[in-house]
Amino acid sequence: MASATFTGVIPPVMTPLHPDGNVDEKSLRQLVDHLIDGGVDGLFALGSSGETAFLTREQRKFALTTIIDHTAGRVPVTAGVIETTTARVIELVDDAIEAGAQGLVATAPFYTRTHDMEIEEHFRKIHAAAPELPLFAYNIPVSVHSNLNPVMLLKLAKEGVLAGTKDSSGNDGAIRALIEARDDAGLTKEFRILTGSETTVDFAYLAGADGVVPGLGNVDPAAYVTLAKLCLDGQWAEAAALQKRINHLFHIVFVGDPSRMSGSSSGLGGFKTALTHLGIIDSSTMAPPHQSLNDEEVARIHAIVDEFLYTP
Amino acid sequence: MASATFTGVIPPVMTPLHPDGNVDEKSLRQLVDHLIDGGVDGLFALGSSGETAFLTREQRKFALTTIIDHTAGRVPVTAGVIETTTARVIELVDDAIEAGAQGLVATAPFYTRTHDMEIEEHFRKIHAAAPELPLFAYNIPVSVHSNLNPVMLLKLAKEGVLAGTKDSSGNDGAIRALIEARDDAGLTKEFRILTGSETTVDFAYLAGADGVVPGLGNVDPAAYVTLAKLCLDGQWAEAAALQKRINHLFHIVFVGDPSRMSGSSSGLGGFKTALTHLGIIDSSTMAPPHQSLNDEEVARIHAIVDEFLYTP
Amino acid sequence: MASATFTGVIPPVMTPLHPDGNVDEKSLRQLVDHLIDGGVDGLFALGSSGETAFLTREQRKFALTTIIDHTAGRVPVTAGVIETTTARVIELVDDAIEAGAQGLVATAPFYTRTHDMEIEEHFRKIHAAAPELPLFAYNIPVSVHSNLNPVMLLKLAKEGVLAGTKDSSGNDGAIRALIEARDDAGLTKEFRILTGSETTVDFAYLAGADGVVPGLGNVDPAAYVTLAKLCLDGQWAEAAALQKRINHLFHIVFVGDPSRMSGSSSGLGGFKTALTHLGIIDSSTMAPPHQSLNDEEVARIHAIVDEFLYTP
Amino acid sequence: MASATFTGVIPPVMTPLHPDGNVDEKSLRQLVDHLIDGGVDGLFALGSSGETAFLTREQRKFALTTIIDHTAGRVPVTAGVIETTTARVIELVDDAIEAGAQGLVATAPFYTRTHDMEIEEHFRKIHAAAPELPLFAYNIPVSVHSNLNPVMLLKLAKEGVLAGTKDSSGNDGAIRALIEARDDAGLTKEFRILTGSETTVDFAYLAGADGVVPGLGNVDPAAYVTLAKLCLDGQWAEAAALQKRINHLFHIVFVGDPSRMSGSSSGLGGFKTALTHLGIIDSSTMAPPHQSLNDEEVARIHAIVDEFLYTP
Repeated sequence: MASATFTGVIPPVMTPLHPDGNVDEKSLRQLVDHLIDGGVDGLFALGSSGETAFLTREQRKFALTTIIDHTAGRVPVTAGVIETTTARVIELVDDAIEAGAQGLVATAPFYTRTHDMEIEEHFRKIHAAAPELPLFAYNIPVSVHSNLNPVMLLKLAKEGVLAGTKDSSGNDGAIRALIEARDDAGLTKEFRILTGSETTVDFAYLAGADGVVPGLGNVDPAAYVTLAKLCLDGQWAEAAALQKRINHLFHIVFVGDPSRMSGSSSGLGGFKTALTHLGIIDSSTMAPPHQSLNDEEVARIHAIVDEFLYTP
Repeated sequence: MASATFTGVIPPVMTPLHPDGNVDEKSLRQLVDHLIDGGVDGLFALGSSGETAFLTREQRKFALTTIIDHTAGRVPVTAGVIETTTARVIELVDDAIEAGAQGLVATAPFYTRTHDMEIEEHFRKIHAAAPELPLFAYNIPVSVHSNLNPVMLLKLAKEGVLAGTKDSSGNDGAIRALIEARDDAGLTKEFRILTGSETTVDFAYLAGADGVVPGLGNVDPAAYVTLAKLCLDGQWAEAAALQKRINHLFHIVFVGDPSRMSGSSSGLGGFKTALTHLGIIDSSTMAPPHQSLNDEEVARIHAIVDEFLYTP
Repeated sequence: MASATFTGVIPPVMTPLHPDGNVDEKSLRQLVDHLIDGGVDGLFALGSSGETAFLTREQRKFALTTIIDHTAGRVPVTAGVIETTTARVIELVDDAIEAGAQGLVATAPFYTRTHDMEIEEHFRKIHAAAPELPLFAYNIPVSVHSNLNPVMLLKLAKEGVLAGTKDSSGNDGAIRALIEARDDAGLTKEFRILTGSETTVDFAYLAGADGVVPGLGNVDPAAYVTLAKLCLDGQWAEAAALQKRINHLFHIVFVGDPSRMSGSSSGLGGFKTALTHLGIIDSSTMAPPHQSLNDEEVARIHAIVDEFLYTP
Repeated sequence: MASATFTGVIPPVMTPLHPDGNVDEKSLRQLVDHLIDGGVDGLFALGSSGETAFLTREQRKFALTTIIDHTAGRVPVTAGVIETTTARVIELVDDAIEAGAQGLVATAPFYTRTHDMEIEEHFRKIHAAAPELPLFAYNIPVSVHSNLNPVMLLKLAKEGVLAGTKDSSGNDGAIRALIEARDDAGLTKEFRILTGSETTVDFAYLAGADGVVPGLGNVDPAAYVTLAKLCLDGQWAEAAALQKRINHLFHIVFVGDPSRMSGSSSGLGGFKTALTHLGIIDSSTMAPPHQSLNDEEVARIHAIVDEFLYTP
C-alpha cells in the first residue's frame, strides 16, 4: 500500500525566504537535513506552514523540487496541491508529478461556495489526474471555511480515491469519531488519519491516529519523533509529559502582538524566528503581507526556545 | 480622475465555456456585445461571476484579452486580480497590464488568516505595482471570510491607494455608512462605491452609491441600465417597481436544488442557462466541480426568463 | 385586522433604571410621553432595547404595566415575550395578557439548538396561548443566533399564527425578498413587516415595509415619524436626506470604547445618555453587567445630540 | 477547599417529564438513585442536559429540590444558575441556596452581546451573591455563542471568585491549554477543570483534568466511573478501549433525523429513550418545542443500548 508509508511524524516543511522574498535554497536544504536528522518519517511540502498560499507557482515548483532533491529518497515527500478549484489544483498536480512527489494533499474548494457533492467530484477528478499517487484530503476549516464530511471521506476511501486525511480542524473529538468510523468500516490500513494539531498528538495516537503533521516539528522534530515513539510504545504518561513540554515551546506562536498582526504572522514568525535562532535558516523573513515580529518579541521567542526545546 | 469612469452599471462578465471546459471565445465576444448593446457603463472581467476562482492563469489571460479586444474601447474594462496573497495578486496585475485593463479589483488575502494591518499593506503593494491603474477593493466576505474595515478603506482612499470599492457583503446599511463616512471625509469624487447586490440597487443609489456590479446584469443589462437611470433621475417609485421586476428574474439563481449543489452552481448555472436560452452563449457549462442543473430546473429558469426579462 | 394597527413608527421603549438598578417609574412615564408626543404609532415594550434580557420577571411586569398604564390607549402597546423556549415564553404571554398588551413579539428558541420544525411549533404554541393577540416573529440573529426562515414565516402567516415580523437582521435585501414573497402570496395586509434597522428606514419603505421599530426612536421619535411620512408621501430624496441626518445622530451608539465594553453597553449607553441629556430620564444607569460610559464619552454623545437631533 | 469535592464523574442530571410536560418526580428520584448507584462523584442539576432552558422557574426549583432531597447528602449537588444576565442569574442563586445546593454553575451572559469586562463583572456579582458556594464558569459556546477567555478565568480563580470551570466547547486542545496555564499559575487545587465532552474523557484526564460532566452518564454512569478510575490508575490503553465502547453507545444521540429535528431533540431524545428502555424513567417526553423520535428511531436506540451499554 502506497499510503502505508505516510504514517508517523511528517512535518509541513517551512519555506525559508531571503529578505528580498525569494526562496532561500540553502536554508531550505539545511531545514530538510534538520528534519531528517531529527528522525521524521516523511515531509509535507507546500502546506499552510510552508506559506504555499503566498508563493507563486514558480516559487512553489522551486521549493518542492529543492525539497525532493535534497531529501534524495531518505523519506517520502508529499506535496500540497492547494488551490481554489479543480482545474487549478490539477495544474499543481502536474507540477508535483514532474517534481517527483510521492503523495498529494488537497483541500476542498475555497473562495467559491461549495457543497459535499462538489467536494466529492473535486477529489475524484484530482485522483483521476494522478491515480498512482496517494491522495490525502486536507481538513483545515480555518483556511477553507468548510469541514470535510466524514461520511464522504470514508466513501472516497472505500473507492480508492483517498488514501487518508490530514485534519487541522483542532477538533480532537471529531478526529476520534472519524477514526472509529474508519475502523468500523474496515478501512484502518486503507485510510490514514493524521492530525495537524501540535499540542494533542498523544490524544490522537491514543484514539488510533496514524501520525501527525506538526508545524512546530520544523523547530523541534526530534521532540515529536520521541513523542510518537512513546505513544506507539504505550508510555502514555511519559508521552503526556513530553507533550506538555512541547506545548510550552508552542507558546512561540502567541508572542506576536495581535493588535499588529494576524495569527499567521505570529505563528509562522515564531517558527521562523526559532529556526533562525537555532541557525537552521538564515532569515525569518515571511512573504508579504505578513508582518514582522519586533526585537522584544524576537527576544521572548529566543528565551522560550532556550527553555523548552527538547533537543539542544 | 481615472476612477471617475468607473460608475454606473458595470457587470461582472461571465466566462462562457465549451463543454470540454475551455473558454468559448465566440460566446464571450457575443456576451460582450450583448452587454455593451444593453448600455452598460463598463465591464468587470475575472470577477467571482466570471468564475475566476475556477480558471487557470492562462484561461484568465485569454478571457481578459478577449474581453478587452472585443470591447475595443467602447467602455472601460476593469480586471479582477483575485488571488490568495500579495505576490500572487501582483502576477495577475502584470497580466492585466499586459492585456490593457483600465482598472483593477482585488480582495483582501484569503485562505491565510489575515489582519487589518496586513490587508492595508496588501493593497499598498498592489497599488505600487500598478500606480497608474485605479485600484478597487473588493469586499466579498462570503468568499474571503473577512470584512473590509471602512476606516482602512478611507485611509487608503485619502492616500491615493484605492480608487473605490465593490461591496458584495449584502449589507446595505454598512454600504450606506461607508458612503456617509466617505462624504464626510470629502472623498466623494475620489472614492467610488459600487454595490454588488443585484436586488437593492435602488437602495444603494438612494444612499449615494456610484454604481452597481450586478451578476444578473449579464442576463438583462438593459434592465439595470434603465434602473440606474431612474435612480439618477430621482424617479424612485419607478426604480423600485423595476427593481421588483428584476428581483423576480433573480429567482433563476435559486432554482438549482440545494441538496445537490452549492449556491455557486445554482447561481452561475441560472445565469448561464438564461444566457443560453437567450442565444447569447452556446453552452451553460460551468467549470468543475460545479454541478449541472437538470432538465426540469432548466425549464423553470426558461419560464422565469420568459416572464420577467425586461428587454425581450 | 388586529395587526393593521401595528404599522408605522413603533419604538422599542427603553427601560430607565434608578442608580440602584430598579426600574425608574417616573422616568419611564416621561419617556412614554416623549414618544407619544413625538407622534409614534405604537410602542413595543420589553424588547432588546428595553433591556428585557436584563430584567427579572417582576421588573418586566412592572415596566410593561407602567407603559400600558401611562399610554392609556393613546397608541397600541405590543409586549416582548422573549424567553429561551416555549413554556417560558408562555409564562410571559400570561403576564402580557394580564397587563393588557395588544400584541406580542417572540423570537425563535435560543440557548438551545433549534430547527425550523421546532421554531414552527414554538410559534404555534405561543399563538395558541393567546389566540386573540397578534403575534409578531422577531428576527434578531445577533441575539438568537439563527435566522427565521421566510418560507416558514409565510406559512404561519397563512395559517393565522403570525401577524407579522420585526426584522433586526440588518439584511435589507432579505427583508425586501420577504416583502416580495409576502405580496406574491397575497398576504400583504395579513402579515406586517417591520424593520428594526434604524439607518435604512427609507430602504424598507421603498421596498414596501409597513413600519420601523427603531431603538434610536427613543431619543428622536419625531425624526422617525417625519421620515416615515416622507416615505409614505413618496418624497424619497427628502426621506434619504433626513435618514442621513438621523444616521449621524446614530453615531452615539459607537462612542463607547470597544476595548472596555460590548456593543450593547455602547449602544444602550448612548441612547440612555442622550435621553438623560434631553431631560427625559433621570439616570443613564444600565443593568449589570453593562459597563458605563466615561465622562469624555458622555461629552461626545452630548455634542452629537446637540448637532444632529432633528427636534430640539 | 469546597471545590475539592467537585471532581470525578458528575453527570448533568436529566429532568424526566410526564407526557403532560410536568416534571416526573418519581422518575427523577429513580434517576438520582441510578446515578448514585452507578458510583458517580456528584450531580449537576439544571444543566443543558437537564433541559434547564425549557423549564419554568417553578419547575427548576422543583427539580432541584427533588434531586437534593433524594440525594440526601450521598454526593454533592451543584446547581445550574443559567440565565441571560446577572440579576436573573442571582434570582436563581437565591433559589439554589434555598434548595441547599452545594455549588453553582453559571454561563457568560447570552442573548445580549457581551464583552470580557462584562463577563468578569457578571461572575464577580454572582459570587458576591453566594460567597460561600463554589462557583463554576460554564463554557458552552454552542448555547452562549461566546468562548470564556482563559486569562479571565484564571484571574477570577486567583481572586477566589471562581472555583472551576465546566468546559463543553468540544475543544480538547483548548481545555489542555487551560489546564497547563492553571498549573503554571499554581492554581491546580484552587481551580477545577471539568470536561463536558463525553467522547474524550481519557484525553482530558491525560491532560490533567479533574473530572467530567457527561450527559451520556445519565444512561451509563458506571461506564464513566470505571473510565475515570482507569484514567486515575494510569491504565490509558484500557481507558481508551472503554472510551471507544462508550463512544459507540453515544451514537444514540445521532439517531434522530436532522431533517425533522435539532441536535437537542436528537440528543436528549436519545438519552431519554435509552433511560426509558432501561426502566429508569417512565417517559421519554421532552419539553416543547423539542420534536419526538419515531418508532424506527426508538428501535435503533434500543439496539444500540443493548449492544454497547457497559453495565447491563
